[in-house]
Amino acid sequence: MSTITCKAAVCWGPDEPLKIEEIEVEPPRASEIRVRMICASLCHSDILCQHGFPLSLYPRILGHEGVGVIESVGEGVTDIKEGDTIIPVFLGECGECPSCMSRKTNICFKHPLTLDGLMPDGTSRLSVGGQKLFHLMSCGTWSEYMVINVNYAVKVDPSLPPAHASLLSCGFSTGYGAPWKEAKVEEGSTAAVFGLGGVGIGAIAGAKMMGASKIIGVDINNKKKEKGELFGMTDFVNPIEVGKSASEAIKEMTGGLGVDYSFECSGAENLLNEAVAATIPGRGMTIAIGTGVKKVVSFNMFELFANRTLRGTIFGGLRVCSDLPTVIQKCLNKEFELDALVTHKIRLEEINEALVLMKQPDCLKIVIQIGTDQEA
Amino acid sequence: MSTITCKAAVCWGPDEPLKIEEIEVEPPRASEIRVRMICASLCHSDILCQHGFPLSLYPRILGHEGVGVIESVGEGVTDIKEGDTIIPVFLGECGECPSCMSRKTNICFKHPLTLDGLMPDGTSRLSVGGQKLFHLMSCGTWSEYMVINVNYAVKVDPSLPPAHASLLSCGFSTGYGAPWKEAKVEEGSTAAVFGLGGVGIGAIAGAKMMGASKIIGVDINNKKKEKGELFGMTDFVNPIEVGKSASEAIKEMTGGLGVDYSFECSGAENLLNEAVAATIPGRGMTIAIGTGVKKVVSFNMFELFANRTLRGTIFGGLRVCSDLPTVIQKCLNKEFELDALVTHKIRLEEINEALVLMKQPDCLKIVIQIGTDQEA
Repeated sequence: MSTITCKAAVCWGPDEPLKIEEIEVEPPRASEIRVRMICASLCHSDILCQHGFPLSLYPRILGHEGVGVIESVGEGVTDIKEGDTIIPVFLGECGECPSCMSRKTNICFKHPLTLDGLMPDGTSRLSVGGQKLFHLMSCGTWSEYMVINVNYAVKVDPSLPPAHASLLSCGFSTGYGAPWKEAKVEEGSTAAVFGLGGVGIGAIAGAKMMGASKIIGVDINNKKKEKGELFGMTDFVNPIEVGKSASEAIKEMTGGLGVDYSFECSGAENLLNEAVAATIPGRGMTIAIGTGVKKVVSFNMFELFANRTLRGTIFGGLRVCSDLPTVIQKCLNKEFELDALVTHKIRLEEINEALVLMKQPDCLKIVIQIGTDQEA
Repeated sequence: MSTITCKAAVCWGPDEPLKIEEIEVEPPRASEIRVRMICASLCHSDILCQHGFPLSLYPRILGHEGVGVIESVGEGVTDIKEGDTIIPVFLGECGECPSCMSRKTNICFKHPLTLDGLMPDGTSRLSVGGQKLFHLMSCGTWSEYMVINVNYAVKVDPSLPPAHASLLSCGFSTGYGAPWKEAKVEEGSTAAVFGLGGVGIGAIAGAKMMGASKIIGVDINNKKKEKGELFGMTDFVNPIEVGKSASEAIKEMTGGLGVDYSFECSGAENLLNEAVAATIPGRGMTIAIGTGVKKVVSFNMFELFANRTLRGTIFGGLRVCSDLPTVIQKCLNKEFELDALVTHKIRLEEINEALVLMKQPDCLKIVIQIGTDQEA
């Protein structure tokens, strides 16, 4: 195995457009795999990282959603092999640490979320013109090739459409997991979902799967209404149009009390407070999924004291070995139709236009076709 | 039944000392009881209310912890009668509303926490020189007599020492309930309690009752250490002395990971953040019990995103009919010794000195003797 030279979108700084560069991708070391990317997709967290949140790491390859084919494997990789199709994940599941053993959480202490843009051993397999490149969490999918640790890869059926696989590697699955694994939504209960992007639509689908009887979507963009309905949303609130706060509107729609569960998918501080206030006092639970640019937010504790619960989540509580394959199988079974989420398809060279597109009201998910036309 | 004239401590404004006045206490109306107070106690929430949080209501009778004997009952009061000993509570339990029926919470929709300082019908039974007096939540215990709605009273065995009964009407019970009803602490798990006042000591006792193997108390006053140990605390952290944050110290004491459960009993913004950071990522849960003067706080969401949970609570999740009698029985059984909490006993006339005393490091709970010396 030798170093591969390939194209990738390199982020050189917080305020610079990405630049398509020839980069060098070293062979995988022990417990690593080198992956030829078929496609990737864009998530708002990529933009946060582009601008240096939570760490300022440059130059860097962004992108954490994607799907690819294993080109080569390092020493000791036995469960998957060359030619297998995989999606990257940013949390592992060792099954043996106290956290995995508790079965209460998807936070694995052996294979945790990493934010330093490096491999678990603290080094990088990527460089540009001899300069070390950082990646994003466990991977860096906006590139023709990437190297990841095998514990941060999940094998998928190659018959799964690549765009669907890419969406399942983070956004949609994160949303889908939250009502299932974090809130454990009961049949017949009520739910509200704040922010109808890929994560929010996933949360709607997850709440529907769990049997929620009323699923209220909240977004300031009316074009999201139709998308939400495709996945199970029963009611829609556009706070700008109703002339009152989302929480007030939701209380009116639920007999004055509020919903049993709310899911905050936007990362906006005011929506976090609205999501809590929209739940029923005494037993309402809010799952905070969306991260914003601020670590510390202004939070209305007075609302929480009414015996409400706020829980933060990474990857919607999905354990990558125990739970994610179930979501993938449901997608193969066409229990949800992810094509409806893909509003744009681009080539890697168009990445900067895509970052602008993401802010348009029409845009939901953008897929980057990296492999051949036949594949992607 | 006629109006009674008696002594009470009247709060005339946020910055004025309380004044002992002759007040008029009307007879109880339907579903109400008039109570001759034996003793009362002081809680930090009384001071918040004295200064106008969350509502500026003057003139007002403060105090929400206490115990007394029913002097007379209004129409339709059948379950309790003249001569019965009761403690006031600030939440009811109707057993019939959707919230009580869910059995998930102590927030009753029919008999909720009220903050307007008035009876459930929006009127007052108290006046001073012809001027209407507000009370505090359901009651106003710093008075020789009070009138409360019967749904906000719990009968107690008259053999229970009055000071113990007073402490069980709010502070200690609130703390005790939190590990039991809100966190549902598992046997062998670890806990940290922030702020070792009456509520914090109650949380220690509750965590011990649930079988926590390690109970770490946090306070900047070393005199609290001995008190905490009496109720089950196994370790103590004084953040000023250890030269690091409480959360860092707690992580070091728990193998680097943090505790399973934390209980924030101080109402201080920085301790709320410390209490969350002190819990184990993935499954740590913080119960926020202490209210501060600020409705909106600076909250570190970044820590919560590591799949941690924050839950607010009123009265520690105790349902006043279903759960509180159990706590009272445990006190009668001497499963915990509340005398250790009572550091000072005063007469009603000394109330202003008591409000100063509360800020002293030696002070834990102050009991106001209102009835005869034989009773109180």
